[in-house]
Amino acid sequence: MYKISKTDEDLKVVIPDNFSQQINQLMFELCKHSGPVTLSYLRYHQQSDGSQRRAKICYITAVSLGLNTNTAKLLAVTVELLHNASLIHDDVQDKDQKRRGQDALWVKASVEEAICLGDTLIVAAYHALSKINTPANSHLQATVCRRVMETIRGQMEDLSPQQPLTEQSYTLIATNKAAPLLSLSVELPALLAGEPSLAKALSNAASSFALAYQFYDDLCDQAQDAINQEPNIVNIRIHELAGSLNASDEDIGTAKDDIKRKILMLLDQATSSLAPLPIEATVILQQTIKELKTRIEG
Amino acid sequence: MYKISKTDEDLKVVIPDNFSQQINQLMFELCKHSGPVTLSYLRYHQQSDGSQRRAKICYITAVSLGLNTNTAKLLAVTVELLHNASLIHDDVQDKDQKRRGQDALWVKASVEEAICLGDTLIVAAYHALSKINTPANSHLQATVCRRVMETIRGQMEDLSPQQPLTEQSYTLIATNKAAPLLSLSVELPALLAGEPSLAKALSNAASSFALAYQFYDDLCDQAQDAINQEPNIVNIRIHELAGSLNASDEDIGTAKDDIKRKILMLLDQATSSLAPLPIEATVILQQTIKELKTRIEG
Repeated sequence: MYKISKTDEDLKVVIPDNFSQQINQLMFELCKHSGPVTLSYLRYHQQSDGSQRRAKICYITAVSLGLNTNTAKLLAVTVELLHNASLIHDDVQDKDQKRRGQDALWVKASVEEAICLGDTLIVAAYHALSKINTPANSHLQATVCRRVMETIRGQMEDLSPQQPLTEQSYTLIATNKAAPLLSLSVELPALLAGEPSLAKALSNAASSFALAYQFYDDLCDQAQDAINQEPNIVNIRIHELAGSLNASDEDIGTAKDDIKRKILMLLDQATSSLAPLPIEATVILQQTIKELKTRIEG
Repeated sequence: MYKISKTDEDLKVVIPDNFSQQINQLMFELCKHSGPVTLSYLRYHQQSDGSQRRAKICYITAVSLGLNTNTAKLLAVTVELLHNASLIHDDVQDKDQKRRGQDALWVKASVEEAICLGDTLIVAAYHALSKINTPANSHLQATVCRRVMETIRGQMEDLSPQQPLTEQSYTLIATNKAAPLLSLSVELPALLAGEPSLAKALSNAASSFALAYQFYDDLCDQAQDAINQEPNIVNIRIHELAGSLNASDEDIGTAKDDIKRKILMLLDQATSSLAPLPIEATVILQQTIKELKTRIEG
């Protein structure tokens, strides 16, 4: 066992050493009725070895709010399953060839098989929830449904956005796409712990962070997205500065600085949402926010 | 209000006149958080106007087992949503251009958008379940997860079947693909009514019927499937009769007769499973079985 974070507080919430393997194994068990072919594709997808940051955020939040480790793991695997379902279906939709350094599943297998695995992971997430024996089950289930549908709303609008995209309309789409599933990582534990106002504050912080992270991604991908004509907040800003003229290097620099300021503002918003909350429940989000802030300022 | 069926018994379970509209409206409401674009595609898909036979079977079974009409409708919409999700994703996977006389959604919109709508309908099914206020909620949810995963197993194996297909291996794939979702239509009401052994018997009958119906479909599509090299039980039988030689008309006739006998046997099995059960709970399945029997014998 090791501490996830060193803060001023001597935190007691820890993540087991083999957390990732445990989560992967649980995902596998929850999918077992989908048969050996599906499971072999799940194993392949798991090899790409994501950070499982959402699962960790969820687990830490849950345990720090007094939920037992078994329940915390079920909540963590729920959000991890939904996140991976969205990655697998997104890769098909966006024709992204690579996922964490290996061929995306639709490239390795086929579009058809990637659709099936994504469907399986959505269903497995509800299977995980169904194993949490609580009268709040219906409420958790309804919350998951709402958040997944909001994500789909963002994805659907991203597929055929109203043209021309403005900073405002893009921000709305990006928020819908990125925020709801990250929110779940913190609001599910809070709801199950019987803390609805905590759930709301954590969810607000997660939403601000998710949007900040999407903008950070856009900052990194600006040049490539411009070539591929993919929606990108930096390029929208450049277009607003340069109009129909070719953008100068100065325009590009100004746009990047503007977006960096926006990101820092969003991170400050997230930090403010967390300020009044108990430190144990927020520490991993705080740490995540700090890491991104350092990258922007560094 | 009208009677769904005339049998010797004077059945009291009736389906409201505007049942289809009610189910469509409920589907729409359950999907509302997925946004206007998704909802417009749902409306388009609903125009294709299926029979909603599963929803009706589910509703009648539920009401006949003493569940209230509101709960019966929620169960009915759950199975209808799952069925439609499977149709929308199947059409993408099988590249079927038409769905009930109009362009399939992936043709009308795009593969990407059809993936999103299918995902939405899966999630909406769980949303419907979450609205049923019962301690059995987790159990219903787990049952749905299992049945959907079995369906995915069948679909996955159908996408890349072990070659050569035999009657036995094809039957297994067809059972996995067709039986689980139809089973849900009858087992969810029985489970919620606290009748697990009834759920099992109804589910067995539904499985036999679903396989019979798939074979009937294969009988109708034999020539087309042979051209498209799509798996088909009749063509597998023809291949077994003729070997590597060209099949004679006599071989084709014999194969069709063999499969017809298989279908009738499966329908008899379904009827036997239903025999010991209370007539009210089984009447709509009985009627469905009889209709198919008439088509085969007629």
